[in-house]
Amino acid sequence: MDVMATKVDNGVNVEALLGARQALTEAPEAARFKWRATCNWVNGTHSRSTVHSFFGLGAEQSHKTEFGYDADHPEVFASEDKGATPVEFVLVGLASCLTAGIATVAQNRGIQLRSVKATVEAGMDLQGILGIDSDVRNGFDGIKVVFDIDADASKDDIAALVAQSQRRSAVFDIVTNPTNVSVEVR
Amino acid sequence: MDVMATKVDNGVNVEALLGARQALTEAPEAARFKWRATCNWVNGTHSRSTVHSFFGLGAEQSHKTEFGYDADHPEVFASEDKGATPVEFVLVGLASCLTAGIATVAQNRGIQLRSVKATVEAGMDLQGILGIDSDVRNGFDGIKVVFDIDADASKDDIAALVAQSQRRSAVFDIVTNPTNVSVEVR
Repeated sequence: MDVMATKVDNGVNVEALLGARQALTEAPEAARFKWRATCNWVNGTHSRSTVHSFFGLGAEQSHKTEFGYDADHPEVFASEDKGATPVEFVLVGLASCLTAGIATVAQNRGIQLRSVKATVEAGMDLQGILGIDSDVRNGFDGIKVVFDIDADASKDDIAALVAQSQRRSAVFDIVTNPTNVSVEVR
Repeated sequence: MDVMATKVDNGVNVEALLGARQALTEAPEAARFKWRATCNWVNGTHSRSTVHSFFGLGAEQSHKTEFGYDADHPEVFASEDKGATPVEFVLVGLASCLTAGIATVAQNRGIQLRSVKATVEAGMDLQGILGIDSDVRNGFDGIKVVFDIDADASKDDIAALVAQSQRRSAVFDIVTNPTNVSVEVR
């Protein structure tokens, strides 16, 4: 870490992360994580999901608390709007992943952040999910993320920060590349 | 709708949805939606996202309330665990999308649901995001969804319900197929 970095505090423990990278390089099995969510149907399109346990570092782990999320469809779809829509949860995941990455890379590069704001918008043609036109996909036709960043760095350094966060982002990869999903009924 | 369906109540207004499908077939421009999220960095890997407005039916729309979501990394990554991880938000989106679809398709097919539970697990090798091995992807290496469904229907009819929900699910499509994401710094 360079001298500048020691003066910078974005709240990210880079030494711990570099230590973890070293440890996982030596014990790659520990790097195999499993992330989980459980979703219970409530009524109509309303469900409640919980997130608590995960697996990693070779053992069962858990969050400090169980996190709960109501999802629903809005009133324009004749639903009760008890929570964000499922597709909006994906946008939250994408924005928060890129933002956490920016803070981490900034810390590693000795760049002090003052504020980071991501504005995300994704187009979706409902002719897909409503089965009107089978040539229209169900999902997003594209996602646009715009960052407003105030930091002690040049425009170029900030752009490089965002680019590196993209290259290391789990959710950016999940959204831009296909992932196999198996669905089973017990 | 058949006679059986009129006795079934999963809390989904299928008439309204079929009406919307008819209306959007006649006015496909109204089917073009835009979903949004805004994410503000808090500290370290902790961010807070909000979901409120969206565009659809040719006009600006909004949820009844603004929904807020804290995202963070867990303590095993030297973070403060103030919320679910970004990748877990994607799992919540996937599980809730398939679950809402099951309720909707069940209503349309006259199947009374009593309970629906989705258990989702996704593998992820951290050698990707930590930059240890460039052959390892950043995102999930696969996702497994298991449904436990109690409903007035045969095993085959329940399996068909889940299959149809998959075929019409926006998030299932987003996760299993690539979507273009543009990232811009303002």
